[in-house]
Amino acid sequence: MEPHRLTAAEASQLIQSNKLTVESYARALLSRISSRDSAVKAWVHLNPDAVLQQARTLDQVPVTQRGPLHGIPVAVKDVIHTKDMPTEHNSPLYKDSHVPVDAAVVATLRAAGALIFGKTTTTEFAAMVVGPETRNPHSLSSTNTTDSDNVGIRTPGGSSSGSAAAVADFQIPIALGTQTGGSIVRPASFNGVYGFKPTWNAVSREGCKVYAITLDTVGFFARGAADLRLLGGVLGVDDYGFKQDEEHRFKGVGGARIGVVRSPVWEYAGQGTIDALQNGRGILEAHGAVVEEVQLPVEFENMLDWHIKIMAAEGRVNFLSEYRKDKTQIHPILAEMVENGSGLTRAQELEAFDGVAMLRPRIDEIANRFDALLTPSVPDEAPLGLESTGSAVFNRMWTALHVPVVTVPGFGGENGMPIGLTLVAARYHDQHLLNVAEAVGKVFEEEGGWKSSL
Amino acid sequence: MEPHRLTAAEASQLIQSNKLTVESYARALLSRISSRDSAVKAWVHLNPDAVLQQARTLDQVPVTQRGPLHGIPVAVKDVIHTKDMPTEHNSPLYKDSHVPVDAAVVATLRAAGALIFGKTTTTEFAAMVVGPETRNPHSLSSTNTTDSDNVGIRTPGGSSSGSAAAVADFQIPIALGTQTGGSIVRPASFNGVYGFKPTWNAVSREGCKVYAITLDTVGFFARGAADLRLLGGVLGVDDYGFKQDEEHRFKGVGGARIGVVRSPVWEYAGQGTIDALQNGRGILEAHGAVVEEVQLPVEFENMLDWHIKIMAAEGRVNFLSEYRKDKTQIHPILAEMVENGSGLTRAQELEAFDGVAMLRPRIDEIANRFDALLTPSVPDEAPLGLESTGSAVFNRMWTALHVPVVTVPGFGGENGMPIGLTLVAARYHDQHLLNVAEAVGKVFEEEGGWKSSL
Repeated sequence: MEPHRLTAAEASQLIQSNKLTVESYARALLSRISSRDSAVKAWVHLNPDAVLQQARTLDQVPVTQRGPLHGIPVAVKDVIHTKDMPTEHNSPLYKDSHVPVDAAVVATLRAAGALIFGKTTTTEFAAMVVGPETRNPHSLSSTNTTDSDNVGIRTPGGSSSGSAAAVADFQIPIALGTQTGGSIVRPASFNGVYGFKPTWNAVSREGCKVYAITLDTVGFFARGAADLRLLGGVLGVDDYGFKQDEEHRFKGVGGARIGVVRSPVWEYAGQGTIDALQNGRGILEAHGAVVEEVQLPVEFENMLDWHIKIMAAEGRVNFLSEYRKDKTQIHPILAEMVENGSGLTRAQELEAFDGVAMLRPRIDEIANRFDALLTPSVPDEAPLGLESTGSAVFNRMWTALHVPVVTVPGFGGENGMPIGLTLVAARYHDQHLLNVAEAVGKVFEEEGGWKSSL
Repeated sequence: MEPHRLTAAEASQLIQSNKLTVESYARALLSRISSRDSAVKAWVHLNPDAVLQQARTLDQVPVTQRGPLHGIPVAVKDVIHTKDMPTEHNSPLYKDSHVPVDAAVVATLRAAGALIFGKTTTTEFAAMVVGPETRNPHSLSSTNTTDSDNVGIRTPGGSSSGSAAAVADFQIPIALGTQTGGSIVRPASFNGVYGFKPTWNAVSREGCKVYAITLDTVGFFARGAADLRLLGGVLGVDDYGFKQDEEHRFKGVGGARIGVVRSPVWEYAGQGTIDALQNGRGILEAHGAVVEEVQLPVEFENMLDWHIKIMAAEGRVNFLSEYRKDKTQIHPILAEMVENGSGLTRAQELEAFDGVAMLRPRIDEIANRFDALLTPSVPDEAPLGLESTGSAVFNRMWTALHVPVVTVPGFGGENGMPIGLTLVAARYHDQHLLNVAEAVGKVFEEEGGWKSSL
């Protein structure tokens, strides 16, 4: 297989056994990027010489001293600090800004041997839906021969736009993102890759731009669940004490209990997602899973409103300093957030914070009746154009509930664009969820009907 | 009055009316520091030339363009990024580390005209109780003639050691700190100054070292509540919608309703704190306040245990990257935290997170029956020696409950060292609480029996 097509787990095996040098792997990715990225535009900072220098240094590490991510290339969303590159947050206020200390997640991956490759595009502060110039690699233009004529240029989603696009386009095996609303799940779904938002607070956010402190979560893009498990292991995302005995350990799709949650926002589902959920359910049942429709208690109908209020309340706090520096240099929507344009009272903020807090143990209880919940990732395929990165309506609730989610590819919409489905588990059941996602992802990818043509 | 003795509010009046230049004010503070700090050792980074350069630049700003903190000197705890100085976290891993982007709180104060003066000492990552070399300015040595012979060298408390000591010693009017357990209230109490921990999440923590994300709070030291109100205003810490009508607005100590909470950890109170609480209660009653003993519901007895578990669970996440970089370069207690030495299960973590979340609206409800709650700040006077910064046992509960607290000076212990008392309000009643603290602080300082001899 061409090295750029390897998953991280596959590449790791070859590197650890000296069958692939980090340098040759890095060269293969740089070559892929060179031939593709003028159209995809996933990267905001990439220095090939520095990448190759890092790669050669890693190749000199004796096999016995190699970390679990030795030589694995990782792209970093440009709201996350990297000691050797600028971090610009897609904001003119941070043009050429360079924090020479790695964010905690980057430092931990680097200490495990990862090759920190470059920075990927984001919407402004990972807080806006106005897209960067990045294009969905499955729909670069009407002249792309793999697209049907009516496809045209489509968004890769956001705010982790470049990370999702780069992974989908085989430019990098692993990329870091952040999610406050749906900034990992949505672009992963739109690009046909796996996206993992761990349990909130399970991975340090130090050194990542803060938007909303009780929502922001660092997460990951990859082309397989095994890669996400590798990352989760390095980052200490364990399920210590949960489902570790024989009786509760996940044993495969056959006999698995899956709860289908159409969610309180089901009205937003387009035909692509309606079909994907139906199709996914059928595939699981055909493989012997016990699938059951779950109706969430009525209080969960508040979740969308509460998420929106929390985002506004916390964004107001966290964009204050940029507003005071120069409010003309931040998007008017962010300026209005700082000015509390929606007139949110402190009592309304507390109602939202406390309301969500009360529902967290309740969703755990519901999720724990199943091996996983299955729910939409997005309303439908990636929308046309780059003006909007699409809707996070199916993601907001889960982000605020702090539960781990993995979006899994396999389905397609009417224009042949990918559509993912989201698996959810109770808080701190991340490793369990990744095991479920690996098994479910396998059958969805094989039988869901959509395959990457890249 | 000598300029170094001015509060921020007093200095601001003089500066805004051109009766005091920022440069002469800065020179007065530098002179105080020069004569005192070889004994107190509050500063870890201070560049007098850079301070004076900033001061002269500020003096050139026309009066009509001056921000609300124009020329007000602010000391910054050395776990908070400052664009023009290193941030070393009292850790060998961050020796000479310099992040050239201000933390959000520093950027906001700077945009309001503050003179960012220098960096003050902290315990390692604001997470340890092993003190830095900073000494309590009220007890520098047995040769200090203001001390009785048996006083000796005492801790200023921690982790915001230098910030509290510098404010108490008239080296700076305002200092920034952070509190995860009791790192603002305890040193403020030990040094006889005001300490303010706002409602959690009301001030951005971006650019501050992360220890425990649901506990860490940025806060402030000053020598008067009016100064804290000034800061709260600049930082957008408002009570929007709460107690703003005539009926609920605080009108002074006479007729105020105060709830005395001895708290579930009352057994840790020494004679100094027992006397201070009794004395404080008597002063308030003598001024016409209605004081009532409050017995918290039995569930609050879990708070100490839950706080300790949350701190351990979150510290484990946030010191992972330092541990992986070089575990021999962090304190063994932090290394053990990362290794989950206490064997905390994920279920125990969730019990603590959710347990505390359920009690937050309940403490609001209790606090809202009063103008403020009055509770101990510390077990007693600052302990002898610099080995330990003392106990946070009386602060942990309030930090985890996210409520705003202000510790107010006025009382003294058997060795003449200061002891503060803490005022508490419901979440997002910060401005209200500062109004109460100003009125209560006035009578406590006048009648509590302890006065600074510095």
